Amino acid sequence: MNFGTVAILGPGIVGGSIALALAKGNLADKIVIYARREAAFPEIKAKLPQAECTADVKLAVRDANIVILCVPIEKMAKLVAEFADSLKPTALVTDVGSVKGNVEKEIAPLLAGKALWIGSHPMAGSEQAGFAVAHADLFEGAAIIITPTRRTQHDAERRAEDFWRALGGRVLVHEPIWHDLAVAQVSHIPHLIAAELIKNVSKKSMDAAGPGLRDTTRVASGSPELWTEIIWANREAIQAALVPFIQELQGIQESLSGADKSRLRDTLQYAHDLRAQMIATNPIFKKHK
Amino acid sequence: MNFGTVAILGPGIVGGSIALALAKGNLADKIVIYARREAAFPEIKAKLPQAECTADVKLAVRDANIVILCVPIEKMAKLVAEFADSLKPTALVTDVGSVKGNVEKEIAPLLAGKALWIGSHPMAGSEQAGFAVAHADLFEGAAIIITPTRRTQHDAERRAEDFWRALGGRVLVHEPIWHDLAVAQVSHIPHLIAAELIKNVSKKSMDAAGPGLRDTTRVASGSPELWTEIIWANREAIQAALVPFIQELQGIQESLSGADKSRLRDTLQYAHDLRAQMIATNPIFKKHK
Repeated sequence: MNFGTVAILGPGIVGGSIALALAKGNLADKIVIYARREAAFPEIKAKLPQAECTADVKLAVRDANIVILCVPIEKMAKLVAEFADSLKPTALVTDVGSVKGNVEKEIAPLLAGKALWIGSHPMAGSEQAGFAVAHADLFEGAAIIITPTRRTQHDAERRAEDFWRALGGRVLVHEPIWHDLAVAQVSHIPHLIAAELIKNVSKKSMDAAGPGLRDTTRVASGSPELWTEIIWANREAIQAALVPFIQELQGIQESLSGADKSRLRDTLQYAHDLRAQMIATNPIFKKHK
Repeated sequence: MNFGTVAILGPGIVGGSIALALAKGNLADKIVIYARREAAFPEIKAKLPQAECTADVKLAVRDANIVILCVPIEKMAKLVAEFADSLKPTALVTDVGSVKGNVEKEIAPLLAGKALWIGSHPMAGSEQAGFAVAHADLFEGAAIIITPTRRTQHDAERRAEDFWRALGGRVLVHEPIWHDLAVAQVSHIPHLIAAELIKNVSKKSMDAAGPGLRDTTRVASGSPELWTEIIWANREAIQAALVPFIQELQGIQESLSGADKSRLRDTLQYAHDLRAQMIATNPIFKKHK
């Protein structure tokens, strides 16, 4: 499989990993990487000498068959507006943003009639940022949610599926609104809670922490700026899922003052069993079970 | 350093790792391992041919200079009552239980006048259980909280410190009540919350989960029976720390319906910075930053 010229806009961990995976799999004729700052180029060139680096986004997309938006979600629309008129009409544009409802609403109109568009969200990444931690296997077994709407052309969906599968991803197809609710559950609330768990630790207790707290809160080392924007953009879905979560916590808290362990035991058993199911069915959970 | 004859009661991940670490460091003349079921012996013997295995707990402790209780907390008192009269009066008995107030209250009287006693809690382990996942490096850099009381003999404290340091641990000395509050924050609440985070994921969203949810909830794969007893035994301290945690969640939940991102941003920033401090100062956080 060969995707021709692929333009990656933003060489962070996700964009960088796409470039490395394309190179490793020999999946592109040309890899073009756009970065705002030219200072980022030498590090990229060192690992990917064949990549073309540019700080001119119009130039970056001009010959591209596929364009991947890998900049923070709040910067996407402005960037798309800049390059939309430079796209080939057959180009496929997609993104890697963690929220899809908002992104769809902002980006789709900017590209209408100018190129094919579909939203994507690879459930892959790290609390560490930047090209330095990018690696070619990042998408291996990872869920990639693509989010067609009624206006999405069939060809856009098919090409996005092919692209992410070639990178090792498991493609899931869902509406943007379904995506936003699902990632509130599996990513955004866990992120917020991880931060709150750390905040709940007194400075005196820090030294006593072991691998449990380390792993439970790993994601809280992610960029506060980036995650403020992600959570804020998806706050409606997060609120909807946080309300029952807090009620559940109140329930278990109350059960601890009673005489009956059964609610506690049932909760731990249910979570254990559901997680066992995830380990059995989700390759990312198998990786480090 | 040599600790003479060391009896390890319970060959799970923690007891097994103590045995392997003693053997690796050549720290004991004799390693005696007690297990209730003789069926456990061949697996132990395969990795530790020099260990003496027995299902007779009195025999296990008879010549021991140090005895480590590595059975589930709710089984400790019964076991200690069985072997207390077989101990050498100079023996040091300690444990690895995750709760210290209760353990101290139950075990100290049973050993008074019969041997030295001090509670210990190594902040090390895994969601996986059993000798099969034990390894000699488990305590490397791990916090080991030892919990002397006013009745603890100075010699017991000194010998426990030496023992855990020889195994690679960082010894912290605190009162049992301090321990129970600290581990509520750094271990028991994170465990409970990890289970609730999994419970909050709908079966439809499971496939979409990535490494964030995997790591945030890793501990929820721990034994439900074991953790029901741990959390139940420490429920007073857990409740005390859960109340402000739930209030904090309600606060952030409310802030998401407002127009001001600053509470969200401040929380993520604070957690990020506190975790950076943990990575800089706590070796366990450095291991997989």
